[in-house]
Amino acid sequence: MAENLTTTVSSKTKEVLISRDRPCVIIGERINPTGRKKLAATLNEGNFDIVRRDAVAQVEAGAKILDVNVGVPGADEPALLTQAIKAVCEVTDVPLCIDTADLQALEAALKIYDGKALINSVNGEEARLESVLLLVKEYGAAVIGLCMDDDGIPPTAEARFAVARKIIERAGKLGIPAEDVVIDPLALTLGADHHAGKIALDAIEMIVAEFGVNITMGVSNISFGMPDRNAINAAFIVMTIHAGLTCPIINPLHKEVATAILAADLSMGRDEWGARWIKAYRQRLKAAG
Amino acid sequence: MAENLTTTVSSKTKEVLISRDRPCVIIGERINPTGRKKLAATLNEGNFDIVRRDAVAQVEAGAKILDVNVGVPGADEPALLTQAIKAVCEVTDVPLCIDTADLQALEAALKIYDGKALINSVNGEEARLESVLLLVKEYGAAVIGLCMDDDGIPPTAEARFAVARKIIERAGKLGIPAEDVVIDPLALTLGADHHAGKIALDAIEMIVAEFGVNITMGVSNISFGMPDRNAINAAFIVMTIHAGLTCPIINPLHKEVATAILAADLSMGRDEWGARWIKAYRQRLKAAG
Repeated sequence: MAENLTTTVSSKTKEVLISRDRPCVIIGERINPTGRKKLAATLNEGNFDIVRRDAVAQVEAGAKILDVNVGVPGADEPALLTQAIKAVCEVTDVPLCIDTADLQALEAALKIYDGKALINSVNGEEARLESVLLLVKEYGAAVIGLCMDDDGIPPTAEARFAVARKIIERAGKLGIPAEDVVIDPLALTLGADHHAGKIALDAIEMIVAEFGVNITMGVSNISFGMPDRNAINAAFIVMTIHAGLTCPIINPLHKEVATAILAADLSMGRDEWGARWIKAYRQRLKAAG
Repeated sequence: MAENLTTTVSSKTKEVLISRDRPCVIIGERINPTGRKKLAATLNEGNFDIVRRDAVAQVEAGAKILDVNVGVPGADEPALLTQAIKAVCEVTDVPLCIDTADLQALEAALKIYDGKALINSVNGEEARLESVLLLVKEYGAAVIGLCMDDDGIPPTAEARFAVARKIIERAGKLGIPAEDVVIDPLALTLGADHHAGKIALDAIEMIVAEFGVNITMGVSNISFGMPDRNAINAAFIVMTIHAGLTCPIINPLHKEVATAILAADLSMGRDEWGARWIKAYRQRLKAAG
């Protein structure tokens, strides 16, 4: 078993440590125009009111890092992303996860970001692997490595493990330490393949055992097309935490999932005296009036 | 890693297989007078109406095995237990888990039980280990082995593993195969020791890796004294299932926990096309009117 590594990310004033010895670090996923017409429209107008509101709401709901994605077709993404990052930093002090497929936007964002950002993401595709990792190195950032490559998302845990190895090793050659690589083994849809959850869980365990790196994952894909999706997402994320996941990418405003993560931390012995659990329970009671 | 074993229990007409290749088998825990004054009082009058009602309700809610415990202080337990078993068999056809600390009651129950029962329980205490295992062997039953001994419940996963080994090996010497021993690693209260969950989870993984036996556990202790107990119980049982638990002892009428178990089976790839999940969802909708 590899030693558990600690990933550090920061804003100008706040440092966040991610490790299996600490409670899960929630990365808030809400600032993303995919499937959100109103957000997409206001972004195109250079209006960041929804972005600011989403930032504050997610931090209040427990997010410790905020993902910022402004991928609107046709927009000037370098300009939009830097403006969005500034808008978020006006209203919150948490570190950011810079989420873009546009290399110029990524570099523009890293230039103006004050702190150690998490970059979302690199994967095993040769065309982009080196160029993204060079930016990670140049700006001293941390990066999320997705377990997919030129052939798409591998169907087995073993093959996803191999992509994780490739990313971690390539990063190492460029002088990026393994603790600055957070792996996302990717979860596909149970409705299309009922082994999708187990494959992702097995991949997490293999990657953690070999490299000790931190693990992130979005969980909303897993339940696509099923009824009562939040109950599935909640159970699945609890399992991923037992397997070794440390920084889930979720919408913390979904109470069922956010509560399950707190209960998972409690079950894993990462909540002394249950203090966080009890505090969150009181907040839920208060919010319910 | 040991091969996964299959435990078979049966009633007169129904066989239930327990293994990590199949969905969890819920053992309904509700027929138990502990903390239930009315049930205790009616049992003392030889009235089994509540027992019958609890049996039917639990099977409708998804229990595949029913635990039967009639431990009322001062009662003639051999007589009461055999009558209760007969009452349950009048209204359901699922296999039973005979739950008693009274050896005479256990033998009386095994004598009249038509099928292969699960016995709840033996533990590592020398005084009773041999005598219970001899009954298991004589009646061809399966047995739950609790990870405690003359010194109480061991504080570490390693020490609980050692008790499991002792019970499995002693059973083997008497000709009881490991597949007929279901281990309960025991979960203590998080409120008293915030490592209680992790210790139980680690014990499950160690015992499964070494012996491949089936694992049972009650989860209601874990959350004692905490607010929102069902949410903790649900998350914890999901983790135990990922660790290797196969037959949780729960009250299936607690919907939050029962639903979490279905979601856990789905996440583990034990629910093809999500058919069980979707069926249970429709039942919940219907029950909600």
